[in-house]
Amino acid sequence: MASIRDVAKKAGVGVGTVSRALNGTGYVSEEAKKKIETAMKELEYTPNELARNLFRNRTGIIGIIVPNMEHPFFAGLCRVMETALYERGYKTMICNTIGISNREKDYLDMLDRSMVDGIITAAHSLDGDEYLKRKKPIISIDRNFGPEIPLIGSDHAMGGRMAAEVLIKNGCRKVLQLSNLSPFVLANERHTAFHSIMAKNDIEVVEAVMDWNNLTYEEHYKVVKEYLRLYPDVDGAFGSDYTAIACLNVITAMGKKVPEEFKIVGFDAMNITRMVRPAVTAVRQNIQLLGECCAESIIKRIEGVETVPYRQILKVEMQYGGTTIQ
Amino acid sequence: MASIRDVAKKAGVGVGTVSRALNGTGYVSEEAKKKIETAMKELEYTPNELARNLFRNRTGIIGIIVPNMEHPFFAGLCRVMETALYERGYKTMICNTIGISNREKDYLDMLDRSMVDGIITAAHSLDGDEYLKRKKPIISIDRNFGPEIPLIGSDHAMGGRMAAEVLIKNGCRKVLQLSNLSPFVLANERHTAFHSIMAKNDIEVVEAVMDWNNLTYEEHYKVVKEYLRLYPDVDGAFGSDYTAIACLNVITAMGKKVPEEFKIVGFDAMNITRMVRPAVTAVRQNIQLLGECCAESIIKRIEGVETVPYRQILKVEMQYGGTTIQ
Repeated sequence: MASIRDVAKKAGVGVGTVSRALNGTGYVSEEAKKKIETAMKELEYTPNELARNLFRNRTGIIGIIVPNMEHPFFAGLCRVMETALYERGYKTMICNTIGISNREKDYLDMLDRSMVDGIITAAHSLDGDEYLKRKKPIISIDRNFGPEIPLIGSDHAMGGRMAAEVLIKNGCRKVLQLSNLSPFVLANERHTAFHSIMAKNDIEVVEAVMDWNNLTYEEHYKVVKEYLRLYPDVDGAFGSDYTAIACLNVITAMGKKVPEEFKIVGFDAMNITRMVRPAVTAVRQNIQLLGECCAESIIKRIEGVETVPYRQILKVEMQYGGTTIQ
Repeated sequence: MASIRDVAKKAGVGVGTVSRALNGTGYVSEEAKKKIETAMKELEYTPNELARNLFRNRTGIIGIIVPNMEHPFFAGLCRVMETALYERGYKTMICNTIGISNREKDYLDMLDRSMVDGIITAAHSLDGDEYLKRKKPIISIDRNFGPEIPLIGSDHAMGGRMAAEVLIKNGCRKVLQLSNLSPFVLANERHTAFHSIMAKNDIEVVEAVMDWNNLTYEEHYKVVKEYLRLYPDVDGAFGSDYTAIACLNVITAMGKKVPEEFKIVGFDAMNITRMVRPAVTAVRQNIQLLGECCAESIIKRIEGVETVPYRQILKVEMQYGGTTIQ
């Protein structure tokens, strides 16, 4: 295969001139451009993207770190981000951390090694320092690292309040709240807000906390089953979509009726909540907007735009299904 | 930032020596290594991965092309492949084609531009020639390009036969078969095999064909609803998991009982089929093995191992749920 040197030789110009012409950086005379073009055609030269990127000091690649891309929330979010980045000329590299902090660190290290131009992270196993010491663009989903790293996330506190209000309106007296979140993320605010509204209304909350980053339906089902056995007088539940679907299935298997005898509110409102019967009442995050904001913000940072807001918090809304009466 | 040149100068060796030391290629004396190491430390030099890869003519990146990574089958498969590739030292770049052939071509072009070392493709909008003309490693999931490009896939014909046999055993007399597959892929064999067994047993098959690469549940629901309205005497159905769940919900909404009055067999047996009630009887592809085979085969090809089998076809199995009686 022809190299940039062969092209330069054939065109009778320097290698630097060819590289400037290829990358559109610096002045190249029209005459030299024509000669280079002719030489490239005659030699069937395909510019090596690695070489081109080396000159530009850009890879055109953005890294996305998620706990597990098989989970419907992250699968959807990755799809939106990849599409949005692609439309703006960037390729996407995706890493599942599966809760392993080394993998998260390995991806962050790629920033320093110039393998990616920026990172969007939704996986949070590492100390904040590991993020803050990087000199290149990072966007955080749901974790607050301070003003250095822009944060994009949903209004989880609002979601928690909305969930509490629905269960109160539906007459619940004692509810199960199941969480499986990293201690670092804002998403915990949904549980804090939920709990505080319930307490104000004298409604008892049984709190279950799973290993965080545990993202399989089967594990949720096991934990839900155990808690509903231990607390048979619970009459409502709030948790992730998986928690909600597990509650629906466990309660139905116990011979109780949803929503008549047991009310459920999920979080995320992914399309699985509309495949089960009855469809699940759930707080919906705007995944489309969340993914697009992340894509736009990381590109702005890479391209040197400093006006990315430090915090972008998105509205959530309620999807009313058949697991609540009103 | 210090460059490789600065390191060479400080260490009193040539640039080529530093690059050989960094990449472990060719001989470098122990004395030179020590000098380079000291110089790197003093200059706080981080080797630029782009530069390193340029020397090696490798990127360490593998591209994965899927129709839509939000679909549970591809979400699961991508998770397995990314994990397997990562464990073997490769990073993963993922592209959703969303049925757009330009995106597929753009990713294939990255092979020629040396941005990726190889491609695993499960998206098939392009002519075979577009694949066959590439000189670098490609692995195909479910599409036969001939001996040049190794094919990895499930035994779809076996799956179709198994589905037919279950519906026959359950006494079905007229069944709906819904497909949404690219005309290029082997997965169609599930429908051919299903149809031929049904015909041999004098069971009528109503065939519905959706736009291929249509991967949303909502679209499946619409089509299923329309067909079950047009053919009220159908007493069984075979299709994707989404088709199966849509049938379950439409039939239940019509006031009929599953499995007593209507039997359903899905394909893939993703975990959504175990979240609905009753759980869906479905043919299971071995996604774990499929993903691992793809990862191993592409790496073998990249590393110059020529002994990758031209066809690797994996066994499927039946997940018995409550949408059939036996």
